[in-house]
Amino acid sequence: MSAVPSVSYSITVRLEVPAGGAAVSQLTSAVEHAGGTITALDVTASGHERLRIDVTCAARDTEHSDVLVAAMSAVPGVVIGKVSDRTFLMHLGGKIEMRSKHPIRNRDDLSMIYTPGVARVSLAIAKNKEDARRLTSKRNSIAVITDGSAVLGLGNIGPEAALPVMEGKAALFSRFAEIDAWPLCLDTQDVEEIISVVKAVSPGFAGINLEDISAPRCFEIEARLREMLDIPVFHDDQHGTAIVVLAALYNALRVVDKPIDSVNIVMSGAGAAGTAVIKLLLSAGVQHLVVADIAGVVHPGREGITGQLAWLAAHTNKLGLTGTLKDAIVGADVFIGVSAPGLLTGDDIAKMADRAIVFALANPDPEVDPAEASQHAEVVATGRSDFPNQINNVLAFPGVFRGLLDAHSSEITTSMLLAAAKALASVVTDEELNASYIMPSVFHVDVHHTVATAVRRAAGGPAELPTDTEVTL
Amino acid sequence: MSAVPSVSYSITVRLEVPAGGAAVSQLTSAVEHAGGTITALDVTASGHERLRIDVTCAARDTEHSDVLVAAMSAVPGVVIGKVSDRTFLMHLGGKIEMRSKHPIRNRDDLSMIYTPGVARVSLAIAKNKEDARRLTSKRNSIAVITDGSAVLGLGNIGPEAALPVMEGKAALFSRFAEIDAWPLCLDTQDVEEIISVVKAVSPGFAGINLEDISAPRCFEIEARLREMLDIPVFHDDQHGTAIVVLAALYNALRVVDKPIDSVNIVMSGAGAAGTAVIKLLLSAGVQHLVVADIAGVVHPGREGITGQLAWLAAHTNKLGLTGTLKDAIVGADVFIGVSAPGLLTGDDIAKMADRAIVFALANPDPEVDPAEASQHAEVVATGRSDFPNQINNVLAFPGVFRGLLDAHSSEITTSMLLAAAKALASVVTDEELNASYIMPSVFHVDVHHTVATAVRRAAGGPAELPTDTEVTL
Repeated sequence: MSAVPSVSYSITVRLEVPAGGAAVSQLTSAVEHAGGTITALDVTASGHERLRIDVTCAARDTEHSDVLVAAMSAVPGVVIGKVSDRTFLMHLGGKIEMRSKHPIRNRDDLSMIYTPGVARVSLAIAKNKEDARRLTSKRNSIAVITDGSAVLGLGNIGPEAALPVMEGKAALFSRFAEIDAWPLCLDTQDVEEIISVVKAVSPGFAGINLEDISAPRCFEIEARLREMLDIPVFHDDQHGTAIVVLAALYNALRVVDKPIDSVNIVMSGAGAAGTAVIKLLLSAGVQHLVVADIAGVVHPGREGITGQLAWLAAHTNKLGLTGTLKDAIVGADVFIGVSAPGLLTGDDIAKMADRAIVFALANPDPEVDPAEASQHAEVVATGRSDFPNQINNVLAFPGVFRGLLDAHSSEITTSMLLAAAKALASVVTDEELNASYIMPSVFHVDVHHTVATAVRRAAGGPAELPTDTEVTL
Repeated sequence: MSAVPSVSYSITVRLEVPAGGAAVSQLTSAVEHAGGTITALDVTASGHERLRIDVTCAARDTEHSDVLVAAMSAVPGVVIGKVSDRTFLMHLGGKIEMRSKHPIRNRDDLSMIYTPGVARVSLAIAKNKEDARRLTSKRNSIAVITDGSAVLGLGNIGPEAALPVMEGKAALFSRFAEIDAWPLCLDTQDVEEIISVVKAVSPGFAGINLEDISAPRCFEIEARLREMLDIPVFHDDQHGTAIVVLAALYNALRVVDKPIDSVNIVMSGAGAAGTAVIKLLLSAGVQHLVVADIAGVVHPGREGITGQLAWLAAHTNKLGLTGTLKDAIVGADVFIGVSAPGLLTGDDIAKMADRAIVFALANPDPEVDPAEASQHAEVVATGRSDFPNQINNVLAFPGVFRGLLDAHSSEITTSMLLAAAKALASVVTDEELNASYIMPSVFHVDVHHTVATAVRRAAGGPAELPTDTEVTL
């Protein structure tokens, strides 16, 4: 479905062309005719006879980048050299690093940062464990923990392959919330082992971000760790998604002018994300909610309704609907999909109520083509960056953890999740709000601070953050 | 024993004095008369009547800093304000941080560092796990892991109190070897649990530095992890100490001109460090080695000789000596103590052979007063920074891990430890070498690179490091 060239498939081609001819303009038109977008063209060496040029261009996908290279090599006189993939180049040697906050220039620095000075700090913490929040990296550190069992849409690819994603997440925590996040990719997928590992490493962290752990194991792991630990445990795939979906719903309802407690909502997907979205919607006052999964509408009479599904059957679908997703969606005000691509067509969306809202969040390919959905629904949102209204967890998790850390919170509660969703929605003002702008950009200057402040206050943290951090003897 | 003011006990006193009088000069002389050293004096506000001054001075210890504050407050007209401890100030909020290596300025950056671009990198690693060494932070990351059971000389102070020490260690890894080290302070002291936690977190790291885990648990933990993991596992308290002691011995023997295979060595201490030193000395060709612990000389006939002690009894003390440490040291060429303060006197050292070597490494107070020892031994070394010849693990561990990482080593062997010791000793040239200079400073420009190169080559790594790290499609 990726029809537009994307920088995430960007390549840099080092090549040589004859000097003084039309080769350069032929090159650029060759790339453009082949559907690529040139983003940079640097002459890196020049002689009387030949020029060496680095051409950077965006392709649609890996096959398309091969097509672009072939198009360039077909230009008369061009000799193709090394072809580099910009995304891979950015990953070389890893994306994150550890830094000392203080220079270590001489023996005096050493004696304060390490022995013998450090011993006094250790003794102070041994006397009062809570001082670790003041005097160590615990104050601002979280662990980003995965077992590699459900990474992005890629499935069970294991801990090493999950590392680039966790590093990316850590980099985002730093960029948007100045949090020191360190990835821990675990070499076990056993629930008991994962729980004991996370518990064991917890003393050095002020929060745990669980990531990309497959359902239903993620539910038990999170629930038991929350019980055990004195720091907040947050499974982003569940609660991060729930926060951004609820925030988007708040704003979509502002656009269509319908109250949250009267709309009919149909959800597709009852996995980790879906279950968390459902729970948060109910906590936010949603009254009319029907859930469908691969076997159709969830109701108590359906076969094999156990575990989380039994809970869902008991708490949704008040009218006792049965049948398929397509049956359920007729007349609905809101469709929220966190499931699989291509389940619905424009015709299905046409059967929804007037001023319908469609969140088709399956990645990378949504439950319904957003262009088709837009012909019938008033507000359409996806998880993709190449359509309006991207619903993206990056809007939530940095601010959520910033707020938790600033409040020294020992837990994360539903009221904090609700506060985060409301705060995120509030970033879009009445003047800005419209059917194509229900969510701010992740680069919006207020997003993360606004979410953090709301979470900090909901967690009982201070109204204002202290600015003076001096320590007295 | 700390008789000299140390920056690690440095305080900054904010105070006010009358303007225009002799108060400032009275202040400085008051501090000096009280035995303190003023290292900075900043006027931070000035008015017609009064000045506000920040006085920074080094004290001998915490009590002495109270004495200095009292001396300053006795100066007529001085009003003492906030008293800050510089070491604690440096620890506020922790000493290390995580950083993204790339700026995240816009959606394009996001699409390469995180989704959707990151998915291609994850898939590449899923296909070929070894690519994690090229494309992730694993390449340059190690975990600094402790259970807080034997921290510095402070004992079993637990994981939170151990954190400042582990952060300091991480900062040194960064400063001296550009390694990204992250501390993991474990909430368990159970051998099986520690092993399974370290195994579980290992995929994201290229090395494990165990730290401050008490004996004998540290032996089993290290041995079993080495068996299990495909990355090197190094217990610094053992092997770091062994490397620096052997390096110092090489150079001390150069000074007194005795060959390593003919000297009589007496060791005091058979704990984690002592055992590792003994094993490395034997691997380096030492033939005559007698070990004493708190119950006297180790020999097979002694009561309660089991475990590590049985191994030591079988591999040392060829002549079958019995008795006490003081008996054993008569006529010895070398004394190496990694045990407890004040076990020996100058008289004991006087009974050693001519041109004796004394390494009294108990911290902070050595086995024998180094000033007394110097009257009878030719070379005296300690673990302290306020005497010549400091034997300090910081000389070894950064370079050792740099070499291991650069070689992509899956293990650490005795031949690598020997190579590290030889390399470290070699940094001191024949021209520089003398009885007061057997070890270079940790700030010596060649130390860490020299150790790293030797370890890298011993580990089968490349003779030269690659400089070009471009990736092709």
